[in-house]
Amino acid sequence: MVKVAVNGAGGRMGKALVEMLSLSDQAELTIALERPDSSLIGVDSGELAGIGRNGVAVSVELAAAVGAFDVLIDFSTPTATVANAQLCAEHGKRMVVGTTGFSADQRAAVESLGQHSAVCIASNYATGVNLCFKLAEMAAAVLGDEVDIEIIEAHHRHKVDAPSGTALSLGQAVAKPLGRELEKVAVYGREGQTGARQRDTIGFATVRGGDIVGDHTVLFAADGERIEITHKASSRMAFARGAVRAAIWLAGQRQGLFDMRDVLGLH
Amino acid sequence: MVKVAVNGAGGRMGKALVEMLSLSDQAELTIALERPDSSLIGVDSGELAGIGRNGVAVSVELAAAVGAFDVLIDFSTPTATVANAQLCAEHGKRMVVGTTGFSADQRAAVESLGQHSAVCIASNYATGVNLCFKLAEMAAAVLGDEVDIEIIEAHHRHKVDAPSGTALSLGQAVAKPLGRELEKVAVYGREGQTGARQRDTIGFATVRGGDIVGDHTVLFAADGERIEITHKASSRMAFARGAVRAAIWLAGQRQGLFDMRDVLGLH
Amino acid sequence: MVKVAVNGAGGRMGKALVEMLSLSDQAELTIALERPDSSLIGVDSGELAGIGRNGVAVSVELAAAVGAFDVLIDFSTPTATVANAQLCAEHGKRMVVGTTGFSADQRAAVESLGQHSAVCIASNYATGVNLCFKLAEMAAAVLGDEVDIEIIEAHHRHKVDAPSGTALSLGQAVAKPLGRELEKVAVYGREGQTGARQRDTIGFATVRGGDIVGDHTVLFAADGERIEITHKASSRMAFARGAVRAAIWLAGQRQGLFDMRDVLGLH
Amino acid sequence: MVKVAVNGAGGRMGKALVEMLSLSDQAELTIALERPDSSLIGVDSGELAGIGRNGVAVSVELAAAVGAFDVLIDFSTPTATVANAQLCAEHGKRMVVGTTGFSADQRAAVESLGQHSAVCIASNYATGVNLCFKLAEMAAAVLGDEVDIEIIEAHHRHKVDAPSGTALSLGQAVAKPLGRELEKVAVYGREGQTGARQRDTIGFATVRGGDIVGDHTVLFAADGERIEITHKASSRMAFARGAVRAAIWLAGQRQGLFDMRDVLGLH
Repeated sequence: MVKVAVNGAGGRMGKALVEMLSLSDQAELTIALERPDSSLIGVDSGELAGIGRNGVAVSVELAAAVGAFDVLIDFSTPTATVANAQLCAEHGKRMVVGTTGFSADQRAAVESLGQHSAVCIASNYATGVNLCFKLAEMAAAVLGDEVDIEIIEAHHRHKVDAPSGTALSLGQAVAKPLGRELEKVAVYGREGQTGARQRDTIGFATVRGGDIVGDHTVLFAADGERIEITHKASSRMAFARGAVRAAIWLAGQRQGLFDMRDVLGLH
Repeated sequence: MVKVAVNGAGGRMGKALVEMLSLSDQAELTIALERPDSSLIGVDSGELAGIGRNGVAVSVELAAAVGAFDVLIDFSTPTATVANAQLCAEHGKRMVVGTTGFSADQRAAVESLGQHSAVCIASNYATGVNLCFKLAEMAAAVLGDEVDIEIIEAHHRHKVDAPSGTALSLGQAVAKPLGRELEKVAVYGREGQTGARQRDTIGFATVRGGDIVGDHTVLFAADGERIEITHKASSRMAFARGAVRAAIWLAGQRQGLFDMRDVLGLH
Repeated sequence: MVKVAVNGAGGRMGKALVEMLSLSDQAELTIALERPDSSLIGVDSGELAGIGRNGVAVSVELAAAVGAFDVLIDFSTPTATVANAQLCAEHGKRMVVGTTGFSADQRAAVESLGQHSAVCIASNYATGVNLCFKLAEMAAAVLGDEVDIEIIEAHHRHKVDAPSGTALSLGQAVAKPLGRELEKVAVYGREGQTGARQRDTIGFATVRGGDIVGDHTVLFAADGERIEITHKASSRMAFARGAVRAAIWLAGQRQGLFDMRDVLGLH
Repeated sequence: MVKVAVNGAGGRMGKALVEMLSLSDQAELTIALERPDSSLIGVDSGELAGIGRNGVAVSVELAAAVGAFDVLIDFSTPTATVANAQLCAEHGKRMVVGTTGFSADQRAAVESLGQHSAVCIASNYATGVNLCFKLAEMAAAVLGDEVDIEIIEAHHRHKVDAPSGTALSLGQAVAKPLGRELEKVAVYGREGQTGARQRDTIGFATVRGGDIVGDHTVLFAADGERIEITHKASSRMAFARGAVRAAIWLAGQRQGLFDMRDVLGLH
């Protein structure tokens, strides 16, 4: 069993990680951390996650617990993550990093952990999303210029930007094998007299409404057939499952800097 | 059995009408017409439609055949349709009109047939499309301002305008019971920092690719649930079936000007 | 503002009701109830629901609070609901009942509240589900025997029966206007040499997997076109929104026994 | 330009091949063949296909034309295909074989062409279908036992068996990397008290209606996310495009026996 510490155990992502670890037969939660000023210190992390007592109380001090874990999963703030990466480097511990918003320096500091032990950094830990990037790339490579490619995404009404980052990444994934530059071929909306579709464009259609967590479809449309690769996210559990998978995989690596494609064997 | 004449029997819509009439147990083809200069005069209209001989040869002169039909289905040109409407008025014959592109005068001339006998004029004869207008209107009336409404449509790569006319009509259908003016609330594309969605907007997402005949979805998205009303067209048979249904219904009307909502009992 | 009491405020449905009431501008939470033996008595019901303090502490005694509410929303046990209905009858209070599993006697006792004041009883309070029943019925009435009807549903891996109750209700909704008996025409699976489809059958296709809350589609398939009416549930908020809507509507009724179709004006 | 002969040029598949070749910039139609007793001998094959004159008249005798083509595309009968394979072997011509229903002996005879020149044999030439087999296999390998797998397919009302052959092949594609035997884990319908879903089953859901050419979806459902790989066929053009692609690819091969996975580089 891989022994896992979770930072930010009282947050929404932390709770999902605690629940996911309780379901794993290859990894277990041994340390649950929160900020020193949190009112949750000492509370049972299982009860906090709504899955019943698990016997791991929320604590403050990672340094005191270095003997009790193999991998730290950290979805928190850049500052906290950099500090934790330093500690992990000193003690040869591995890290799964889901924190976002790093400066270039901060990111370099976290990445340098890869020289001491193994670290995985990804902006999206959902297994399915990372798989879909690969499937879309493969489909584009095989179908080539015989198809029209469109990307349709739907998110909740509170999302303030469009298209989603994942939609743009899917666009990159299909543009690459076709030798197209996404910036030049992307079409973000159609209104009025648009003329016939140009084959080498990549269209984006954006839907906003309700509480949709995140749906993405890459459509490859040819005369006589369509292929669709679709991802639908419904909860944080998707990210938690990918992060736990990364922790288990990382436990088998001596050192290096990795991303989810490495974890999933998709390179 | 309602006896039906089909104008433009050698065209693609005409062939679909000939096929659809061969499947009906309430209507039958008795006259198949083409332009005087057509090379198809005299050819069996069933063979032409690819369904085997039906014994109705393509002919030229509607006036000579007034004793042989109850209803004329006409998907042709404005000029031809106006002339046929005059003839039908003189002889008390009914007409199903699928022709588009009328001037105001031409349209008035065709509509005046409704004072002499019964005429149905519609821009889209597909039963399902007309039904979806009604379903969307009813859904909007019931769901009101509790939902976000988005309309997603997909068509083949050759379509030169966006959104489709049917998508805009669906927009009108949902805007009306909500007291919104579509021109003011329609959003045709989203790119960059859009901000959170405004409840009273109606979003349109447009997909273009391959040989997609025409897909339309009206999405009503609330917290916790989504309702979708979807229409997918796959061939001209949808229009032919609606037109034949209109012909049968019209045979039971003494006089008046009707549209597909009347035929389907949707008013 | 309609003053609303919520029974079972510490349960998952109760929390959703508390949250939904906080979003309404026509109804407000005034009483939050739990069982006498609950450890949650005295806790702020808003904090419990994860939406921050709302000043309504969880209490035990409905009788003591009759002056403080107009409508009681009750998703609890048959025994508790029957007792509450009696109390509401005595004091002329209205009730929205979401409890299931009544015996015939218990159900009659709750329904009798309709002679004293207004009561709404429904097995599914989601606005969208009830709307879809109506849309499916209307579509079947219009499309008649020109289409093949299939119902596709998907639920999470833990669901132990098939098809879902909602799928069967959708089947009833389309069978009725067509004069078909669902028991005789339902087809629940296809394997091997099935022969061509009989027009008057209604097919059910069942998908089970992951944590899918509940997707339902009624498909009407004709030559040349398809119409789909789809409902996708994603959370308990759908039921809470419908129940709050019922409470507001009920506040305007003097007396009677109602269901969600009455509330939504769908009869 | 690869010079292509098409056998059965007057059939529905033949017409699609003639049309597809007219759109290619790497292959051209040089010979159009029909049975000696066909009434179409001498007719222009382009007019026959509805694309206007192409100058290639329908002829009878392949032997007389061996100088005029590089690759023969043959979607006809086993007997005719075996005879053509013999002729192609003698003259070092390549063949794309779409004929089905071979006996073991007949199949061996056609396959032996691979020792003299290059031959491609496949039961389904649609590029997208073959791609989806590969995508589904890859997805299953990556997602492993973390997901529930279901296959949903829809076909027209005239289809007499279920599930479709393509659905079963998709089942094989996902079962293989998971070490499951499809015969043991397939579930073809669910009715009544089914109990919770077993992770290692593979469910099939079958929809029949209207004129649906063929839709297939492989669903991978996990807690928190779903991945779907979907193929929708709309016309024979999908098969024609794949067959022409195979012909062009085959022209670059010296000898061997190939299938569509070879053509698409999917092995």
